[in-house]
Amino acid sequence: MDKPRVSIVGATGLVGREILTLLEHRRFPLAELTLYASKRSAGESMEYRGEELDVKILEKEDFLSNTDIALCSAGRRVSYDIKDWVKGTSVVAIDNSSAFRMDPGVPLAVPEVNPEAVKEHSGYIANPNCSTIQLAVVLKPLQDAFGLERVVVSTYQSVSGAGQDAVAELSKQSMALFNQKEFEISSFPHRIAFNVIPQIGPFLENGYTEEEMKVTNEIRKILAMPDLGVSCTAVRVPVFTCHAEAATVQFARDAQVAGVQAVLEEFPGIEVKDDPASASYPMPIDAVETDKVYVGRIRRDLSGPRSFNLWIVADNLWKGAALNAVQIAELLVEG
Amino acid sequence: MDKPRVSIVGATGLVGREILTLLEHRRFPLAELTLYASKRSAGESMEYRGEELDVKILEKEDFLSNTDIALCSAGRRVSYDIKDWVKGTSVVAIDNSSAFRMDPGVPLAVPEVNPEAVKEHSGYIANPNCSTIQLAVVLKPLQDAFGLERVVVSTYQSVSGAGQDAVAELSKQSMALFNQKEFEISSFPHRIAFNVIPQIGPFLENGYTEEEMKVTNEIRKILAMPDLGVSCTAVRVPVFTCHAEAATVQFARDAQVAGVQAVLEEFPGIEVKDDPASASYPMPIDAVETDKVYVGRIRRDLSGPRSFNLWIVADNLWKGAALNAVQIAELLVEG
Repeated sequence: MDKPRVSIVGATGLVGREILTLLEHRRFPLAELTLYASKRSAGESMEYRGEELDVKILEKEDFLSNTDIALCSAGRRVSYDIKDWVKGTSVVAIDNSSAFRMDPGVPLAVPEVNPEAVKEHSGYIANPNCSTIQLAVVLKPLQDAFGLERVVVSTYQSVSGAGQDAVAELSKQSMALFNQKEFEISSFPHRIAFNVIPQIGPFLENGYTEEEMKVTNEIRKILAMPDLGVSCTAVRVPVFTCHAEAATVQFARDAQVAGVQAVLEEFPGIEVKDDPASASYPMPIDAVETDKVYVGRIRRDLSGPRSFNLWIVADNLWKGAALNAVQIAELLVEG
Repeated sequence: MDKPRVSIVGATGLVGREILTLLEHRRFPLAELTLYASKRSAGESMEYRGEELDVKILEKEDFLSNTDIALCSAGRRVSYDIKDWVKGTSVVAIDNSSAFRMDPGVPLAVPEVNPEAVKEHSGYIANPNCSTIQLAVVLKPLQDAFGLERVVVSTYQSVSGAGQDAVAELSKQSMALFNQKEFEISSFPHRIAFNVIPQIGPFLENGYTEEEMKVTNEIRKILAMPDLGVSCTAVRVPVFTCHAEAATVQFARDAQVAGVQAVLEEFPGIEVKDDPASASYPMPIDAVETDKVYVGRIRRDLSGPRSFNLWIVADNLWKGAALNAVQIAELLVEG
């Protein structure tokens, strides 16, 4: 694909803004950029390469006439429209919402993990859940080297995964507590300041939350292991940006710590940060606005055979959302 | 034992203060209470049942002449002294430090779990690690009902586990960040405000931290299962008080969710809080200064057979430290 005309749908949201930043940072070879948002953002403008671009209200004909590649992060409802609109056109949509991730006709892509999936698209590509992406990047080289049998993951997820209002809410609640003032609870089911909440998204019938089942189902699809045992506990923590994960991974074949480390170090997109002697391991505050998935605390699991514990951190707005989407677009252009 | 003379060693520390509160709350039947601390606390006094008690500087002869039961929470170094002092006397010391927990001659006791251990003491009883206690209380009824094969636990530990200075540090750092001021890092290896740190205590040669190996080794001792597979990832989170744990527990015999719930509900010291429909599950902010170990998010683990996921919260200063010690003392008195 020669320099495409790119549209960002949901440009004023937390992920949309990062997509704009990353298109500029990475010198994405685009012919034209159009920003779309809902009526709430009417009249806004955003800067791209020193130029002020007006934010347009999303409308079918205008969108289709301006777009070769659409980077969408405007929620499930908008995704249903976009999927319908692009059908039968040459427009390719990369969708950050969960609407079509598990649709067998829609590739679910992490460029380092399953780039081949991007090529099999029929106009629509889904970007996985933030917690899924950083886990998938780490699991892929382990799958290739040792085989996977079982994955248990507990997450430590930042509030930015829930959007701009949620970020403000953590600030407001924290300050209110110090000042002994009243505060609102609206982005989360409970107070998040100086608390942890073991619920992300609504509960499903099996006792898991939607977020937890996204991780299970999406990992299985991305790694093409529909029966892989994956269990997740998704927890919101009072951190602004970057998600952390404690993962226990059981392999099909046994390994050594050094071997696991080496396999991870060689994989694109991963940076191993694992030096206990200097208290060096991945942490949210160090991963903000970085491209990598960081892995540390690599050690043999003491509870079962062929099993290792890992600690994984990435920027949920970048590799967990905007960056992954832009990387998919880059693959399309390289095509 | 008739109304004993009780001493608190380390009375001015975070746990010492809670011991004092709990002795009063629970109307502990004591003949006399003596408070000991280090020179740093010389001249302080603390209130007990409406009376101001002077804090005395810890000194062997004075301590031995005033004490039938000592509740110690003054760190490992003091514990070595106390263990030496009480040898051959009738004084019984209950020690909150980790100094003698793994000593085969010292009982490691959680009253709901292994009360028989308390009776086998020879003058010295160890109180387990905070993260161990809440996990042990939950594992015991599951062990009895279904047998245990494997335990994987990720912790979300509050700063109060690191003492008074650590609590102040979370406050100071948080406020400094809002005010764009400089701040100190001294209680933890890194900034804790709006961050998570996957290190509690120094690292050992096997890649685990001391805290993580305490959980593994102490659980094995308390449950009398020296070969139980227990693996822990211990993580500090920016929460003031109460520890949370995401545990995956594999049983020897299969179970149903309702069965697991019922077994937990019947066990003393546990409160099951597990109603997804009303977003009801245990959280740190709800457990402060309560006696119970709270369990929720009880669901079948999707990654392996006979395996369940649980979310466990308790007040690390109460059930995780001071309360457990006072409960041991109560067993001695009833004894």
